[in-house]
Amino acid sequence: MRAHSRDNFGLRPVELRVGGNKFAEGTCLVEFGDTRVLTTCSVEERVPPHVMGTGAGWVTAEYGMLPRATKNRTRREAAAGKQGGRTLEIQRLIGRSLRAAIDLKGLGPRTLTVDCDVLQADGGTRTAAITGGFVAMVLALRTLKSRGTLAKVPTVTPVSAISVGMVGGEVLVDLDYPEDSSAQVDLNVIGMPDGKLVEVQGTAERHAFSRADLAAMLDAAETALLQLFAKQAEALE
Amino acid sequence: MRAHSRDNFGLRPVELRVGGNKFAEGTCLVEFGDTRVLTTCSVEERVPPHVMGTGAGWVTAEYGMLPRATKNRTRREAAAGKQGGRTLEIQRLIGRSLRAAIDLKGLGPRTLTVDCDVLQADGGTRTAAITGGFVAMVLALRTLKSRGTLAKVPTVTPVSAISVGMVGGEVLVDLDYPEDSSAQVDLNVIGMPDGKLVEVQGTAERHAFSRADLAAMLDAAETALLQLFAKQAEALE
Amino acid sequence: MRAHSRDNFGLRPVELRVGGNKFAEGTCLVEFGDTRVLTTCSVEERVPPHVMGTGAGWVTAEYGMLPRATKNRTRREAAAGKQGGRTLEIQRLIGRSLRAAIDLKGLGPRTLTVDCDVLQADGGTRTAAITGGFVAMVLALRTLKSRGTLAKVPTVTPVSAISVGMVGGEVLVDLDYPEDSSAQVDLNVIGMPDGKLVEVQGTAERHAFSRADLAAMLDAAETALLQLFAKQAEALE
Amino acid sequence: MRAHSRDNFGLRPVELRVGGNKFAEGTCLVEFGDTRVLTTCSVEERVPPHVMGTGAGWVTAEYGMLPRATKNRTRREAAAGKQGGRTLEIQRLIGRSLRAAIDLKGLGPRTLTVDCDVLQADGGTRTAAITGGFVAMVLALRTLKSRGTLAKVPTVTPVSAISVGMVGGEVLVDLDYPEDSSAQVDLNVIGMPDGKLVEVQGTAERHAFSRADLAAMLDAAETALLQLFAKQAEALE
Amino acid sequence: MRAHSRDNFGLRPVELRVGGNKFAEGTCLVEFGDTRVLTTCSVEERVPPHVMGTGAGWVTAEYGMLPRATKNRTRREAAAGKQGGRTLEIQRLIGRSLRAAIDLKGLGPRTLTVDCDVLQADGGTRTAAITGGFVAMVLALRTLKSRGTLAKVPTVTPVSAISVGMVGGEVLVDLDYPEDSSAQVDLNVIGMPDGKLVEVQGTAERHAFSRADLAAMLDAAETALLQLFAKQAEALE
Amino acid sequence: MRAHSRDNFGLRPVELRVGGNKFAEGTCLVEFGDTRVLTTCSVEERVPPHVMGTGAGWVTAEYGMLPRATKNRTRREAAAGKQGGRTLEIQRLIGRSLRAAIDLKGLGPRTLTVDCDVLQADGGTRTAAITGGFVAMVLALRTLKSRGTLAKVPTVTPVSAISVGMVGGEVLVDLDYPEDSSAQVDLNVIGMPDGKLVEVQGTAERHAFSRADLAAMLDAAETALLQLFAKQAEALE
Repeated sequence: MRAHSRDNFGLRPVELRVGGNKFAEGTCLVEFGDTRVLTTCSVEERVPPHVMGTGAGWVTAEYGMLPRATKNRTRREAAAGKQGGRTLEIQRLIGRSLRAAIDLKGLGPRTLTVDCDVLQADGGTRTAAITGGFVAMVLALRTLKSRGTLAKVPTVTPVSAISVGMVGGEVLVDLDYPEDSSAQVDLNVIGMPDGKLVEVQGTAERHAFSRADLAAMLDAAETALLQLFAKQAEALE
Repeated sequence: MRAHSRDNFGLRPVELRVGGNKFAEGTCLVEFGDTRVLTTCSVEERVPPHVMGTGAGWVTAEYGMLPRATKNRTRREAAAGKQGGRTLEIQRLIGRSLRAAIDLKGLGPRTLTVDCDVLQADGGTRTAAITGGFVAMVLALRTLKSRGTLAKVPTVTPVSAISVGMVGGEVLVDLDYPEDSSAQVDLNVIGMPDGKLVEVQGTAERHAFSRADLAAMLDAAETALLQLFAKQAEALE
Repeated sequence: MRAHSRDNFGLRPVELRVGGNKFAEGTCLVEFGDTRVLTTCSVEERVPPHVMGTGAGWVTAEYGMLPRATKNRTRREAAAGKQGGRTLEIQRLIGRSLRAAIDLKGLGPRTLTVDCDVLQADGGTRTAAITGGFVAMVLALRTLKSRGTLAKVPTVTPVSAISVGMVGGEVLVDLDYPEDSSAQVDLNVIGMPDGKLVEVQGTAERHAFSRADLAAMLDAAETALLQLFAKQAEALE
Repeated sequence: MRAHSRDNFGLRPVELRVGGNKFAEGTCLVEFGDTRVLTTCSVEERVPPHVMGTGAGWVTAEYGMLPRATKNRTRREAAAGKQGGRTLEIQRLIGRSLRAAIDLKGLGPRTLTVDCDVLQADGGTRTAAITGGFVAMVLALRTLKSRGTLAKVPTVTPVSAISVGMVGGEVLVDLDYPEDSSAQVDLNVIGMPDGKLVEVQGTAERHAFSRADLAAMLDAAETALLQLFAKQAEALE
Repeated sequence: MRAHSRDNFGLRPVELRVGGNKFAEGTCLVEFGDTRVLTTCSVEERVPPHVMGTGAGWVTAEYGMLPRATKNRTRREAAAGKQGGRTLEIQRLIGRSLRAAIDLKGLGPRTLTVDCDVLQADGGTRTAAITGGFVAMVLALRTLKSRGTLAKVPTVTPVSAISVGMVGGEVLVDLDYPEDSSAQVDLNVIGMPDGKLVEVQGTAERHAFSRADLAAMLDAAETALLQLFAKQAEALE
Repeated sequence: MRAHSRDNFGLRPVELRVGGNKFAEGTCLVEFGDTRVLTTCSVEERVPPHVMGTGAGWVTAEYGMLPRATKNRTRREAAAGKQGGRTLEIQRLIGRSLRAAIDLKGLGPRTLTVDCDVLQADGGTRTAAITGGFVAMVLALRTLKSRGTLAKVPTVTPVSAISVGMVGGEVLVDLDYPEDSSAQVDLNVIGMPDGKLVEVQGTAERHAFSRADLAAMLDAAETALLQLFAKQAEALE
């Protein structure tokens, strides 16, 4: 039996707590079991150079881990003088996923920055960040509407993210850190409620995987994502 | 009347929540009103070069703010590629203060690192960090004893910290951000239960201050610190 | 008709030229149409800390682009003072893919570094780098054997990589830069001759994609990879 | 008897030599015994963003030590690639202190930069830098007036700085490096001729200090500062 | 007999291959024996601040080595986070030399950037870079004329560069790496077809050299440079 | 007539003041007119990796300018986060020149670091640094002998350095900043008392120069160097 008394396809207890930061335009503290990520969405009335003049807006993300989010203390990236490759890779993924969820034209010439700070890491921090970051982003859009900055909230399509993997030849959903460490395959799936996919990243950690393995993992992910969309809808009610 | 219905000498509601991080040897989430700092204490079985060979241990601190801890988003220091002067100054202060609280010989040749991460900033983050960091440090020492790493917890003397200031000619205790922004004098006092002082940092922001002003602020600080020592004792029970 | 007179499933002219660097243990200049990447494999008789003491070896990769590999000159990363997020993400992918191709135990306690330097970029630089990097790696293993450093070449399983995408609703294989810029979906597939997958990275650039789209793209990739394995075998003859 | 034949309250020989740099708008080479700091004041006709549009000016400071200002050679910060925490803390202190000494509105929209470079360090470099930096700043204002840039020299109030400490239970004024290294308490006092305080930074190095200790140190500082104001007046004659 | 069957005054086989990069305004792959440098010339329609407003243009150069251009792998400067002193020194030399070759007024307010990337290093990379970089620059000027950006190609005077040295008391021309490593004197000469000198950099590696030695080396350089001017003219035909 | 009432071949007033730093093993404050460089020589009982195990020692140099050494304030390199290309180029030149002056075997396995800090810059800072740095180095060797670290001072051969240039078609010796700014050719010559050359660096700033020009400049340098050797001998008496 896996931790949190769940079967291979079960999610850990998921919480999406909105609010909790008095400054950010949108905030969501997301928990997948012991993984805990604080996501905040901030708004700036300017866009990066490559978007300038198009009338559209932009969404970007930054990711960080508190030094003791991990079992052993990790060196603070600010002290190390740079963000590591893993951090940059993850924040690029979060940014791409959230941009897919919003009509950037409808946002108008402003930038949403979604900060995802991991308070505690027990596997699946990037997928939790995307799932919670979407909620923070929608809350920020509502704030902009209530402030009168936006006449209406631009069209958004929910995105959620889940990690799936293969451990001992079996498909597991929502891996915690010990499971992730022993997985043969690690797959992150970012999708939408209609079953469409936004991003699929599968990595063979020890053994290459077959097309059938991939299909089985994607099936499992699809079911899990539906539960996450329900959680998001509830949090945004 | 000041926010939180308090008079000039009143503290904001102070909370010292222990636990809440499953990895760190000691954790304390400290709140002074809307200021919220997560402090964790980590242990390494080695010491920096200047202590090596003395048999003594070391305590150091690191300080950071989440980008949206502040009213307007602050640039992430890891992305900027370095810690700013304010950050370095604050973490040096925290480290010195906590070293004063512990018998480093009794700690033995190991290093305690107290990470102070500001989740929300509304004035007084450095004093909150010291006050909470002391609790996290003591918890870590108890963890080391329960693990058998330490035969006994080394002697500690509580340190707490409070900010005092002068606004409109009056002494105020525990300034929130709006008060801090309009203060003529800003004084951080780090002390011990016997009234002794560990660190005093007073800065004239707009007007130089007299010896009498300083005495009045120190009197006010002394009373406030006693309340904080009681909070710490309660949290550590 | 696509450039290089090919249909949707056709590869650009692919060349894997071995040799050409008098110092490296293995070298392969790989061309996919106008994309040209110089891959060299270097050997060091030491391993990174996390492998030390296991008896196994390690494979790592570094990726870079010459400033004028691109249509407009790109700032030199050495002058900018850091490698960008895209660079780090790509070199992590190359490293993971090549580690999957080799028996690290059989390599023994040494590190292979595969440098992938893009001389000219016209789409698909990362997949070219993996495809050519595998050849450079095998050549380096043969050099180690001929030098007597290795008693026998450790077991390797070929890995090749191909980009697939959807443009205007159709699946295209081996996208060049103009195609890549207008793709709705971008999928990089790294696989082995038995059809197993090592890495799958699919990104919706403008439109989310269905499971059926993904299957169609993977089918196309599989055929393309078979041609690349033949090219690798020929180059290594 | 302390070095330089002085009693506990005595200053080391203090010299404030004006001039000596043919380029700077104001220059003062300040010596406290063997501590020697070259301070120069430079003028730029622009202000930092947070002052822009207010009509006021700004004063900032930078601090550095030549590598062999110290007993053992210290690594050059330019070679290390960043200014250390001690450097940043000191230059922030110098900047705040000198801003307190000048009517920034009267300065107009320009920036004074006071560079404090330690040629030889024997304790008290930051207090020497403030004391000499004030002189350099006033000389620069006079230069601006003589050039016709300023119609009149803005109002300045002298600031001087002194270090006081407790060694073996006794109050000592103007500690040299060996005294500083063995001090139980270290207090830097920046004040004005009317006895008002601009900055007070007291640190318990080994033993916490009482309010009475603080008062005794401040008394001693007050007397010392009066001598420094006289030296400054003499240098500026 | 030296490698490549040449006498003391002989050049290695020199190739200046134009073209080979589909993006750059000018490209020349230069080879001196086993030394191989890819030079590309890029154009930007802006000038650095110190030239702004003069109507003149600017030429700058950047230099880099692929990690495995050398016998043992050299750390990638982008990964190290900075360009080393040798790199900066060389690219400053290349820039100065190429600026001497062109009428900057005739270029107009635009910047030519000559990137010199060493694919393989066997001594004389900086002199090869200058010799090839001149060709790339002229090709870029022709491209600007054919694009109509320039009404006419500005006046250029060829510059070529050669290394000369003293090994075992004898003058050698165009040293390869083993010769360079054992040279007592190392002299880089950058000159023009009329015998005038643009840059002379002579360094005693082990033994100081006499005026007569210098004259002998300059004589040898002069002859070698004439051959290089012929090669450049041929490449530019 | 040039400044300091000198003819084309005259040196500015040169001073080599020994001592003046109580910590360094050797110190020389060198002045060429208004150019003023503080050189100190420090000793460490270790050598860099490439010398390790040879029994020989090493000499290295670092160069820096105080921000207001120049007419307009220059940005502090420590604040900029790196040493510029000019700085690195100069300190490499100083190091090479001083290594040529000493028997590194006789020094034994230790490193001499010569710090050259420019207090005021009026042309010729690198040549002043070499000339004064040699004196500081010899003083340090004497200190090592008097401490008993060295049984005898290793063999040294004096090196001095001078800048020569061509302005308006005439050869000038020891150019000050205004002369240097208008020079057509700039030549730095580092030599020894027997007339041998250690380093020659000639640069055409505006006009290429002939072999005859070079000879005339070297003649002038030779005479000037003889005067500098006399100054060095006097300072070291």
